[in-house]
Amino acid sequence: MVATPPKPTTDISSISAFGTARATVQGSPLSGEELRKMHAFWRACNYLAVGMIYLRDNPLLREPLKIEQIKKRLLGHWGSSPGISFVYTHLNRVIKNQDLDMIYLVGPGHGAPGYLGPCYLEGTYSEIYPEKSEDEEGMKIFFKEFSFPGGVGSHCTPETPGSIHEGGELGYSISHAYGAAFDNPDLIVTVLVGDGESETGPLATSWHSNKFINPVRDGAVLPILHLNGYKINNPTIPARISHEELENLFRGYGYTPYFVEGSDPETMHQAMAATLDHCIGEIKKIQQEARSTGNAFRPRWPMIVLRSPKGWTGPEEVNGHKVEGFWRAHQVPMADVAKNPESFQLLENWLRGYKPEELFDHNGKLIPELKDLTPKGTRRIGANPHANGGLLRKDLRMPDFRQYGVKFDKPAQIEAENTKPLGVFLRDVMKWNPNNFRVFGPDENTSNKLQAIYEVSKKFWIAEFFPEDLDGSELSPDGRVMEMLSEHTLEGWLEGYLLTGRHGFFSTYEAFVHVIDSMFNQHAKWLDICRQLSWRADISSLNLLITSTVWRQDHNGFTHQDPGFLDLVVNKSAEVTRIYLPPDVNSLLSVADHCLRSKNYVNVIVSDKQSHLQYMDMDAAITHCTKGIGIWDWASNDRGCEPDLVMASAGDIPTLEALAATVMLREEFPDLKIRFINVVDLFKMQPDTEHPHGLSDRDFDSLFTIDKPIIFNFHGYPWLIHRLAYRRTNHKNLHVRGYKEKGNINTPLELAIQNQIDRYSIAMDAIDRIPSLKVAGAHAKEKFKNMQIDCRNYAHEYGVDKADVLHWKWPY
Amino acid sequence: MVATPPKPTTDISSISAFGTARATVQGSPLSGEELRKMHAFWRACNYLAVGMIYLRDNPLLREPLKIEQIKKRLLGHWGSSPGISFVYTHLNRVIKNQDLDMIYLVGPGHGAPGYLGPCYLEGTYSEIYPEKSEDEEGMKIFFKEFSFPGGVGSHCTPETPGSIHEGGELGYSISHAYGAAFDNPDLIVTVLVGDGESETGPLATSWHSNKFINPVRDGAVLPILHLNGYKINNPTIPARISHEELENLFRGYGYTPYFVEGSDPETMHQAMAATLDHCIGEIKKIQQEARSTGNAFRPRWPMIVLRSPKGWTGPEEVNGHKVEGFWRAHQVPMADVAKNPESFQLLENWLRGYKPEELFDHNGKLIPELKDLTPKGTRRIGANPHANGGLLRKDLRMPDFRQYGVKFDKPAQIEAENTKPLGVFLRDVMKWNPNNFRVFGPDENTSNKLQAIYEVSKKFWIAEFFPEDLDGSELSPDGRVMEMLSEHTLEGWLEGYLLTGRHGFFSTYEAFVHVIDSMFNQHAKWLDICRQLSWRADISSLNLLITSTVWRQDHNGFTHQDPGFLDLVVNKSAEVTRIYLPPDVNSLLSVADHCLRSKNYVNVIVSDKQSHLQYMDMDAAITHCTKGIGIWDWASNDRGCEPDLVMASAGDIPTLEALAATVMLREEFPDLKIRFINVVDLFKMQPDTEHPHGLSDRDFDSLFTIDKPIIFNFHGYPWLIHRLAYRRTNHKNLHVRGYKEKGNINTPLELAIQNQIDRYSIAMDAIDRIPSLKVAGAHAKEKFKNMQIDCRNYAHEYGVDKADVLHWKWPY
Repeated sequence: MVATPPKPTTDISSISAFGTARATVQGSPLSGEELRKMHAFWRACNYLAVGMIYLRDNPLLREPLKIEQIKKRLLGHWGSSPGISFVYTHLNRVIKNQDLDMIYLVGPGHGAPGYLGPCYLEGTYSEIYPEKSEDEEGMKIFFKEFSFPGGVGSHCTPETPGSIHEGGELGYSISHAYGAAFDNPDLIVTVLVGDGESETGPLATSWHSNKFINPVRDGAVLPILHLNGYKINNPTIPARISHEELENLFRGYGYTPYFVEGSDPETMHQAMAATLDHCIGEIKKIQQEARSTGNAFRPRWPMIVLRSPKGWTGPEEVNGHKVEGFWRAHQVPMADVAKNPESFQLLENWLRGYKPEELFDHNGKLIPELKDLTPKGTRRIGANPHANGGLLRKDLRMPDFRQYGVKFDKPAQIEAENTKPLGVFLRDVMKWNPNNFRVFGPDENTSNKLQAIYEVSKKFWIAEFFPEDLDGSELSPDGRVMEMLSEHTLEGWLEGYLLTGRHGFFSTYEAFVHVIDSMFNQHAKWLDICRQLSWRADISSLNLLITSTVWRQDHNGFTHQDPGFLDLVVNKSAEVTRIYLPPDVNSLLSVADHCLRSKNYVNVIVSDKQSHLQYMDMDAAITHCTKGIGIWDWASNDRGCEPDLVMASAGDIPTLEALAATVMLREEFPDLKIRFINVVDLFKMQPDTEHPHGLSDRDFDSLFTIDKPIIFNFHGYPWLIHRLAYRRTNHKNLHVRGYKEKGNINTPLELAIQNQIDRYSIAMDAIDRIPSLKVAGAHAKEKFKNMQIDCRNYAHEYGVDKADVLHWKWPY
Repeated sequence: MVATPPKPTTDISSISAFGTARATVQGSPLSGEELRKMHAFWRACNYLAVGMIYLRDNPLLREPLKIEQIKKRLLGHWGSSPGISFVYTHLNRVIKNQDLDMIYLVGPGHGAPGYLGPCYLEGTYSEIYPEKSEDEEGMKIFFKEFSFPGGVGSHCTPETPGSIHEGGELGYSISHAYGAAFDNPDLIVTVLVGDGESETGPLATSWHSNKFINPVRDGAVLPILHLNGYKINNPTIPARISHEELENLFRGYGYTPYFVEGSDPETMHQAMAATLDHCIGEIKKIQQEARSTGNAFRPRWPMIVLRSPKGWTGPEEVNGHKVEGFWRAHQVPMADVAKNPESFQLLENWLRGYKPEELFDHNGKLIPELKDLTPKGTRRIGANPHANGGLLRKDLRMPDFRQYGVKFDKPAQIEAENTKPLGVFLRDVMKWNPNNFRVFGPDENTSNKLQAIYEVSKKFWIAEFFPEDLDGSELSPDGRVMEMLSEHTLEGWLEGYLLTGRHGFFSTYEAFVHVIDSMFNQHAKWLDICRQLSWRADISSLNLLITSTVWRQDHNGFTHQDPGFLDLVVNKSAEVTRIYLPPDVNSLLSVADHCLRSKNYVNVIVSDKQSHLQYMDMDAAITHCTKGIGIWDWASNDRGCEPDLVMASAGDIPTLEALAATVMLREEFPDLKIRFINVVDLFKMQPDTEHPHGLSDRDFDSLFTIDKPIIFNFHGYPWLIHRLAYRRTNHKNLHVRGYKEKGNINTPLELAIQNQIDRYSIAMDAIDRIPSLKVAGAHAKEKFKNMQIDCRNYAHEYGVDKADVLHWKWPY
């Protein structure tokens, strides 16, 4: 059945983007002169946007447009550009009038022409890219290199001055904005949210970030929902629900929404100016009230709904199809200009309609009266140092991590919860850096044993308090531990916080870190591009502690078992990715200290939160972590000779099991020489030609030998080790065990057994691989097999593991 | 600075979960007798929930409780259980009273005790698991095996009768519910949403699913937000915003919210019964109005906000700490019962407080008057066939895919857009299966060239229509193409649709499929467990077309380039994962046909949407896809002898480049024997011991030789091929090229060159690896290098690639 076309169902006037402005805030604050100039500035922006999309020459239209002056490949998105520059133009006004410290984040992905135009007009673009100078020649290059090979992208990429938000993947503009505002009391972060973007999950929950702003010490976020009306081919949901629903939705999110709707430029300018004045006034009033009393309350922050036509001021109709105010304006409105003379003429008329000759002087520079509309120096949106956060970044004041370690005499005799001392260390980092460091986690900092931090800084909470909250909830409007059950929002906040020059630490469940796979990908890509931009100052690394790991999720079951995030991490640029698997308290502290001091990386640390054997005293841990990989002499008996077997491990539980297997083998075969290697820095497995942390083949060979069997007990999926090490000389003898998707409700040991990372399995593996034990080992194998069966039976009978197996010690 | 504890800020009575019920709907529909019985049934549920968490013996407390009857390891989450069973109890009433066809999805992750209890009481649990019979012995096993090794998990796992939603990872309950309701006009899907879950991004946007229900042909979803108040250690956001905000939020989402708030059982039962009666009435009224007129309108669907104390009916206080109605009730309220006599006594009192002796007969079976409250047969929530969708599944009626192919005489001479004929094929699948098949995509079906489908079925749209929508927007309230800019929601809908026995197809951007990495992981795990459950009937595979692939995202830039989803897929069970890279139209059709017929898999198909060379006529495509891997004789010249080089490829663009390189090499070195292999079924690369599709080593060796150089040009990250093939005999000679995270704004060819998958790079690679060309090849290498430089220069000059290079043909 072919569907019949529907009838329009609505009184369009009530929600149309067209006509005279309709606004919540009444008023016409602009004088006729101001209005004329601002509109002219916006015309210049729109002219540049169209120029970027279409022109490779004749940038000021000083001569009649010719076909060869049109780019061969037309790229870029016109649809959202006019709205983006409309807002930029109006932000300039309030920044200048009120000397505001403001940055501007642009959510709508491909709308960069709407941002790059005013950024060029204010001069910041040419300062950073001198060849794109403020003259005809510079404008020509500016146009040509937009969305052009070797040029700049059609998003607000890292190459864009003033940008901390690219928006290639949609959904994170609001959370980035709030992250930027935390601990920046004088900053206002204006963020334009696309109505397509607003359909995404991450964006939908990030509106709740307003419950995490303390008006005393944090800056403000001013969200502007741009109801542009359409995605690529479809209307957007928020543009097609009733005005009442939309207003309810934002009131429900806790904002006071102010509407600015229409298409008539004159009245829209007045409405936007009045609305922005009002909203900035509201923000200041809230801040003043909070700051004068010291009382951190949760206000209704203002937000703006800007409903304007998609492709505003562009062609109304092309080839008989509506374009302005419709999805057909989304990308390039006329793609056939090179072939269709009618389209070509339409383009020239469109461009000339902005009257470039009135906007640019004879050199091609914006005329002074319009230039005068832009803020000066670092008040310019493109030059605000908060958006190049490394400029403002201060190194953390670091307590001596060595003071937080555990002390013991002999390796592998005592147990401790690995993350607990880290919590104490982080507590003091927090204490020493009270306005410059935050800790993030999805309702799990206590569960992850990091709760010492609450002694210095509570979980931030400014929504309603109940009396019982005083009993251990650790909530406070002064807190800087950020907890919300949204990994997306936390990651977005943290990225915003780092990109504006601060420091942070994020801990999360291993299995559910996949929720933010795509955000990790995008941040790693951002960092990788920034490396290549000399004007971008270094920012702090994103430190991600992955805990509640697979091997202790036996009781939570299969859904909670997934160590695959590392497989994703290794796909990204070696220049920006680091992976550490410290097996005990002291190595975790050493790694954490290193990560907190580092810059421009994503550091992934894998460490379980439960009790584990302690292997290295502090000196040993520092030495081992500095090397990243090494032989544990105390666990090896091959000194002075070639080993019969190399036993290697990475990760806390696999290390324990590998050690226990080593002991079992040595007890059965006293002459057997086993070398024990532990890997903390996973990229050591890769050749140094592939990763800056990689071991040279020579060093690798001297550790792993060139011909002895290697058993590698790994925390994650076993194939990852092969992927890193497939080029190594002794790869053919490398046998890796790891998680292979076998789990349900188990005990810890049973889970290990199912995946064959347990001591019995790998001891049997070793026997199979040591030539001299092929025959002699049969008896031992059978013995190990029976011990394994005993363990499983015990677990199924009692629901717990045998204590002496689970809590095993090194016997020598 | 240590934060001072905050003062409570609210008039608690206004939003407390305690006291006499306060409800939007007034009324006391329950007679005293009904009320008494329903409360008794709920007591039985709660008794069972506590029993599951604590007891391994003495299930009916027929004797005084002893310590050895307590489980050694206490697992499970008490906090949300009472609310879950409260709702179950009330759903039973409306199902029975009105003979409703209803399923029940439980969002709150670990609350399975609240579901398993009533499921056992209604008899379905014992029917599927006879050893857990409805008597004392069965109850003992039922208790013991809860969250016990070898037993069942603490979520509504696949082992749970009536469940299609596990909730281990939070956020997808609502989208699963809507997916189940699509095309099930008589079904009501009640879904309980946790207030913790409701903080997640995917959940936050999925409320908008109500804009995608057609009341004429779809069933209804009744969401119940369970304001339990707390997560593990924190309050939840929705429980701590004002009543007004909460009401606004749901009105903004387009619902009519009905509140049921309090803790007093008697009045809460009346309020819940009155509210459910009202909501079911509303749903029926809406459906009747729509169905009697045939007018599909968007109503305000009802939803319920149930605010009740966390750990409702559990201990109020333990060791001086508030428990009921606080986060301390989240998991096991008293973890120290084995060691603390006071806690032990508290537990026994708690259990006895439910008066099990009044609820169960002398055999341990629920007494008849309570049993009588449960629906019968397949009306029982645990037995509804929609929740074991394979029972209802009908095979698709399939058009002959061979009719949709492209015809040509010789391989590699003409170009076609690979996905376009697939769109025509899907159109006819849709036509032949109008109520049983849906297509999903995030606003990209047209962009992905699948638009032929709109000839039969439009994009579903029931929000406001504008007149211009008639011009090509392809919107209709009759459509079954589902587009929303939320991959999370789409994936959730599709899973819900499949799990209830229907069929679907999802196409999405390659780079942004990472948004749903974690959902893929969880669905694959669900399928893997279902394989082991004989009572779960087979469901259709989840078919995921990954398009707009990396090699044609040169213009969108770095953020849009990520082929890493496959690295994730290969981590999941080989029994449920399939990956296909058909290089042309006919192979894509063949693969799609196969996937649409398959069951219980996630099929991932990678195919770009733009113009590509066509290699295989339909017969050749079918043969090739059936084998999954094979030598392309027409592109090889090694017949009758050993090749000097094996050139292999997987993916459309890499295949083109590998073929072009083959020609370049043959032209330079006419005596060179090259074997050309193409891989469609990626798992062929793995040994057959690892994956059911894997090639035996013998077959692999006969294709790839045991000692000749292999160049493998791969679509994705190159290491994936090593990971699959590292055990193969000739692995040492395997040289793989693929995407290695080098991209920005490029032309297609420049992007290929940067990542060295272009014809020039791999021809040079080949020369380096063929011993006989080590010296003789130097000149050719230089020539290729210069050709490559020419291509880059051309791209930088004109912004496009040389047409004869981009649009290349096989010359022989």
